[in-house]
Amino acid sequence: MNYIETLGKQAAAVRREISTASTNQKNMALNEIADMLTANVEKIVAANDRDMEAAKASGMSPSLQDRLRLDEKRIYGMAEGVRAIIELEDPVGRIESGSIRPNGLRIAKTRVPLGVIGIIYEARPNVTVDAAALCLKAGNAVILRGGKEAFHSNQCLVEVMRKALKKSGMPENIIQLVEDTSRESAAAMMKLNGYLDVLIPRGGQGLIRSVVENATVPVIETGTGNCHIYVDEYADLDMAAEIVYNAKTSRPSVCNAAEGVLVHQAVAEKFLPMMKQKLDAKSVLLYGDQETAGILGSSVLPADDEIYATEFLDYKMSVKIVPDIEAAIAHIERFGTRHSEAIVTDSLKNAEYFTSNVDAAAVYVNASTRFTDGGEFGFGAEIGISTQKLHARGPMGIHELTTVKYIVNGNGQIR
Amino acid sequence: MNYIETLGKQAAAVRREISTASTNQKNMALNEIADMLTANVEKIVAANDRDMEAAKASGMSPSLQDRLRLDEKRIYGMAEGVRAIIELEDPVGRIESGSIRPNGLRIAKTRVPLGVIGIIYEARPNVTVDAAALCLKAGNAVILRGGKEAFHSNQCLVEVMRKALKKSGMPENIIQLVEDTSRESAAAMMKLNGYLDVLIPRGGQGLIRSVVENATVPVIETGTGNCHIYVDEYADLDMAAEIVYNAKTSRPSVCNAAEGVLVHQAVAEKFLPMMKQKLDAKSVLLYGDQETAGILGSSVLPADDEIYATEFLDYKMSVKIVPDIEAAIAHIERFGTRHSEAIVTDSLKNAEYFTSNVDAAAVYVNASTRFTDGGEFGFGAEIGISTQKLHARGPMGIHELTTVKYIVNGNGQIR
Repeated sequence: MNYIETLGKQAAAVRREISTASTNQKNMALNEIADMLTANVEKIVAANDRDMEAAKASGMSPSLQDRLRLDEKRIYGMAEGVRAIIELEDPVGRIESGSIRPNGLRIAKTRVPLGVIGIIYEARPNVTVDAAALCLKAGNAVILRGGKEAFHSNQCLVEVMRKALKKSGMPENIIQLVEDTSRESAAAMMKLNGYLDVLIPRGGQGLIRSVVENATVPVIETGTGNCHIYVDEYADLDMAAEIVYNAKTSRPSVCNAAEGVLVHQAVAEKFLPMMKQKLDAKSVLLYGDQETAGILGSSVLPADDEIYATEFLDYKMSVKIVPDIEAAIAHIERFGTRHSEAIVTDSLKNAEYFTSNVDAAAVYVNASTRFTDGGEFGFGAEIGISTQKLHARGPMGIHELTTVKYIVNGNGQIR
Repeated sequence: MNYIETLGKQAAAVRREISTASTNQKNMALNEIADMLTANVEKIVAANDRDMEAAKASGMSPSLQDRLRLDEKRIYGMAEGVRAIIELEDPVGRIESGSIRPNGLRIAKTRVPLGVIGIIYEARPNVTVDAAALCLKAGNAVILRGGKEAFHSNQCLVEVMRKALKKSGMPENIIQLVEDTSRESAAAMMKLNGYLDVLIPRGGQGLIRSVVENATVPVIETGTGNCHIYVDEYADLDMAAEIVYNAKTSRPSVCNAAEGVLVHQAVAEKFLPMMKQKLDAKSVLLYGDQETAGILGSSVLPADDEIYATEFLDYKMSVKIVPDIEAAIAHIERFGTRHSEAIVTDSLKNAEYFTSNVDAAAVYVNASTRFTDGGEFGFGAEIGISTQKLHARGPMGIHELTTVKYIVNGNGQIR
């Protein structure tokens, strides 16, 4: 698709300017972006109104409408988010390691921007600003392709950000929006080798799978979280019930929410009613094996492999009684998505065994899976949570939007 | 392909055992592998003889035959290589960073093995042992698919290594060989999602491009090197001639050899004859623009875009005279493969400008590109040289065969 290639060329043309910009220059541009966002609240809300009207007319669900909606408060919040990124330490230029080799060569492994980053996401206009600001701070050009339902909002936000770039003396093409929201434009981005240094899909399982299967450019997979809490035979059961309740209900729509609970058989009879009592406060629907139904009664719907593999993102949870920690780990290995997994236990041995043997971005002992988050980990704003193993794993901040380059200084060394 | 999936399942079944093995266990297995290699020299040479006979019969080129050939000395060399890997520090378990969060959560970013690594390579049986030993030391299971011309050698080497694993009490399936060397088996590895954590192609441009275009599993791209030496107007011309000569001729078949020289117009008339005189000693064929031919005469063949984009891997080199450093960087950006690029200059400003603006894994000032190598960088043995930006860039040692996991300890924290 020529249009996407044109965007790629335009990004490539400004890549060196943004990648060699000083921290001050980048922070001044971010400050200008924040100012311009608040100065253009009315215009942005008006653009968002057009999207909202179409969303209502098309019968978009209330929760999706909520994610699409921008008002004054949210736009001020976006500007605050941009200002928070100004405060983050610039990773570019940091010397990761270095040495003088026996032959006198001085090698410095130096952090540098990735280059040009593509982001494909859904109808969440806040991602437009977040992602652009994070990419910019890390010295990258960005090509944004948001969901078509947010088109007018995104167009307005990107226009405002590009004006801010221009005002601060930076090339506007550091931030570009894909204005063609067809499937073809997404497909073209996935094959934009030579221009895109990485493509980050942010969204549901369908989007991410499509990118992983079709992209020939490097991809960072984000987000799918079929997370579990394993309640060990040595668990503090009150703590376990609190953790399950929190991990399931504090924000069910996010990827670090727990979807399944695994209970050691020795404590199941005592624990499950305690857990159910708490979850009932939020009317959480339980799916379980026969043993669980035997303990909790007929309100428990039957669980099969498909249920155990489901990321509900809702007030629903699967339950399984397991004979031992090994069976819990096997279940997680089979159905988990390598995102966040937790054990509740007072056994040091079991805690150690679980953290060593469970393969996930974050493995918790006696804490809620909900903490897998850039802010909670102390990294500042995040671009997403990687569930893959290459390059970045877990919450990705601006550091993960950079790579390294070996700068080698000599005085005529030959080999 | 069911066969490849079976190998994937077998690797997955032993993944946890090797990933949680202690450094001592892994080193003992490596020691056993080294011992068994030298104890089975005759058997390995006999298997290699079968490959060599077929290679000769099929008219394989002498240089490829040389890469295929194993003799006692080379097998002892392979065993030495394995023993050198024993000496490398084990990256697994290293705490990369960590903190106690305000809520008391203790977060430790811990280095862990990748899991299961697939390697597709050509008819180089030494890669079979190198790659298996590096993967093992980093706690990974490995699935090796070597070129069909080396089939009997690889089969014998893998048999010996699996026996050594067994003898040291480790599961044999930590090291597996794909015995089906058809294109289909390579294609099946590229789509082995759910079993392969990463696929590393090692070989020529065709193989690497095929993997990048077709793989749905994560890939680390290695190897293609269209590297340049830029001779600046402020270069020490004697040093520049030495560096060009070394980078081109010390080992033309490797990826860090230089393929192109860019010469600032202010020094071209003086430098090019000096360079040619040195290169003539190895009968290096030069391709150049009209200006170069004007200076060096009719022995310079005409260079076009195709020539400038070629990784010769031979005693051939492209030459271009450029008006300034900017034009040199633009040429590298257009034709380079982001591997290794060098400037020869005495100007601090130009050195700084070149290292900041050239996008490559390694950027040199006043040194040969030939140093881009795990051993030369002090990393020990390498699994390849990454020319991509995600996960690993430049020489990849055992550190790059690992990922991280956040281990988070709490005492009931909820969010």
